Amino acid sequence: MSSEPILVLRRGTHGMPVSDLANEIRERLPDHEIQVATTPEEERERIAEARVAVGMGIDEELLSHAETLDLFACAYAGTGHLPMDALKDAGVRVTNAAGVHGPNIAEGVIGSILAFYRDFFTGRDQQESHEWRHYQTDEFMGATVTVVGLGAIGGAIVERLAGFGVDTIGVRYTPEKGGPTDEVIGFDEEDIHGALSRTDVLVLACPLTDTTEGLIGEEEFVTLPEDALLVNIARGPVVETEALVAAIRRNKLHGAALDVTDPEPLPEDHPLWDFGNVQITPHNAGHTPRYYERLADIVAENVELIDAGEGELTNQVL
Amino acid sequence: MSSEPILVLRRGTHGMPVSDLANEIRERLPDHEIQVATTPEEERERIAEARVAVGMGIDEELLSHAETLDLFACAYAGTGHLPMDALKDAGVRVTNAAGVHGPNIAEGVIGSILAFYRDFFTGRDQQESHEWRHYQTDEFMGATVTVVGLGAIGGAIVERLAGFGVDTIGVRYTPEKGGPTDEVIGFDEEDIHGALSRTDVLVLACPLTDTTEGLIGEEEFVTLPEDALLVNIARGPVVETEALVAAIRRNKLHGAALDVTDPEPLPEDHPLWDFGNVQITPHNAGHTPRYYERLADIVAENVELIDAGEGELTNQVL
Repeated sequence: MSSEPILVLRRGTHGMPVSDLANEIRERLPDHEIQVATTPEEERERIAEARVAVGMGIDEELLSHAETLDLFACAYAGTGHLPMDALKDAGVRVTNAAGVHGPNIAEGVIGSILAFYRDFFTGRDQQESHEWRHYQTDEFMGATVTVVGLGAIGGAIVERLAGFGVDTIGVRYTPEKGGPTDEVIGFDEEDIHGALSRTDVLVLACPLTDTTEGLIGEEEFVTLPEDALLVNIARGPVVETEALVAAIRRNKLHGAALDVTDPEPLPEDHPLWDFGNVQITPHNAGHTPRYYERLADIVAENVELIDAGEGELTNQVL
Repeated sequence: MSSEPILVLRRGTHGMPVSDLANEIRERLPDHEIQVATTPEEERERIAEARVAVGMGIDEELLSHAETLDLFACAYAGTGHLPMDALKDAGVRVTNAAGVHGPNIAEGVIGSILAFYRDFFTGRDQQESHEWRHYQTDEFMGATVTVVGLGAIGGAIVERLAGFGVDTIGVRYTPEKGGPTDEVIGFDEEDIHGALSRTDVLVLACPLTDTTEGLIGEEEFVTLPEDALLVNIARGPVVETEALVAAIRRNKLHGAALDVTDPEPLPEDHPLWDFGNVQITPHNAGHTPRYYERLADIVAENVELIDAGEGELTNQVL
């Protein structure tokens, strides 16, 4: 039994209690003490003695109570909300949860694409009115799918496209590294537009950065074919919302599947809600009943690396 | 130019004009005369001189006018509606359109599975009320998928499952032939129930035969896990409708995606329309804009085989 416990902070996600996360970690590290903080006061008390803290986030105030903390294991793939300077000053390492969401988000992306190609929405409307009547659909086979971002999520999407007989183009910062897609290009404007001009399905699976903010705007909607489908499971601001709404209104897009929006949550009176060719899911693609299992895998692996005195951790970002 | 023309009968399918089919055949056989019959009278007149007739069906009356007919190329995968005895007596060979529907039906099947796992239906309901609120979903990865029927459609489904990290069981008449699934079993009752007991997703992709009629009834719904999903793109009577409705009413099934029903069309007052966990599509999975292209491929290939004097045709069933 290690003398310095592993602390699970009190805020969970997607309505799943953090006690479940603690249990998953306990199963994987039976020789370690796993504590759960259920109140802000317990968080402050217990973090003083913890070596590893696991949570959605940590603020500077809570961090100021940490004395022996070596690792903050962030439960999100993105760490932009963390006080990185303060964590660095405190000598606390940070890992993220990249990879945890790959399977479920990829399943959602492929599901949305096929729902549009098979026009499940018309089917659903007809079902509601008990109407048995054939309608036209389209075929995905032979399409060109461009995936922006070839990280854990983009990779999981491409993996699942393997059996569908489609062509794939990947967009990443370092195209020289290659990737799992038939073609790999960088964020150079000419390359992107060249790819967009022959894209049937554009999947955004990149982090939000200075490069990707507003990546898909008015000009890009002009370049995309008019029967293209947009799938955004990255972050809302990767797409310029006004340009998207304008493209839909002028029938310049086959449809859009949006798990993220800008602004988010989408205001109740926003026009995006009511387009028949827009599917909105409430930033829900990241939900999976296996979230805590896969997060616990990463935490347990890193605790074992720390125990073994290894310098580099899995998914380490600081 | 062959002296005996190829005749396209007047009835098309899915609202696509048969002139499109004739054009697709013309592109592939530029040296042959391709005729289209637009009225019953034209059908009777022109079939007298045709060597090959292409159509959804042919009745004995029309067949009695055929004098030089060598091949009836049926535009459907199933030929149970044809007067096979009369065709045999008339010395007319018959081919079906097996394979034409593989890609589109497989896309529909995977789309339905993922729509259930990601609960797109809750998402759609929330979207209609402009409601941004997280909801629980499930994950497909790790599931066991049983595909009944490993023909062109079953094979296309299994092919597309490759990237999803699922286990597959195939059911076919001749399990000794093996197949593309992780396991292959026959229609032996014990084998089927053994498979059903560990099935998360049951896909029916078999022809309707004495063996498959009523294959999934009361006992099979008892054997299936209560969170199993049923996908039927075979024929309605493969499932006993009353047993299905009863299983849904007693919450013994996660859901059902039905492209075919029994009776069909589904009567307006049928209870299946209104279950929140049933997706009804109106025998529409077979629709694809490439239907006539792929059908023309089969017809052209067989005309060339006939021209070359080959005895065995592609997709020959009589």
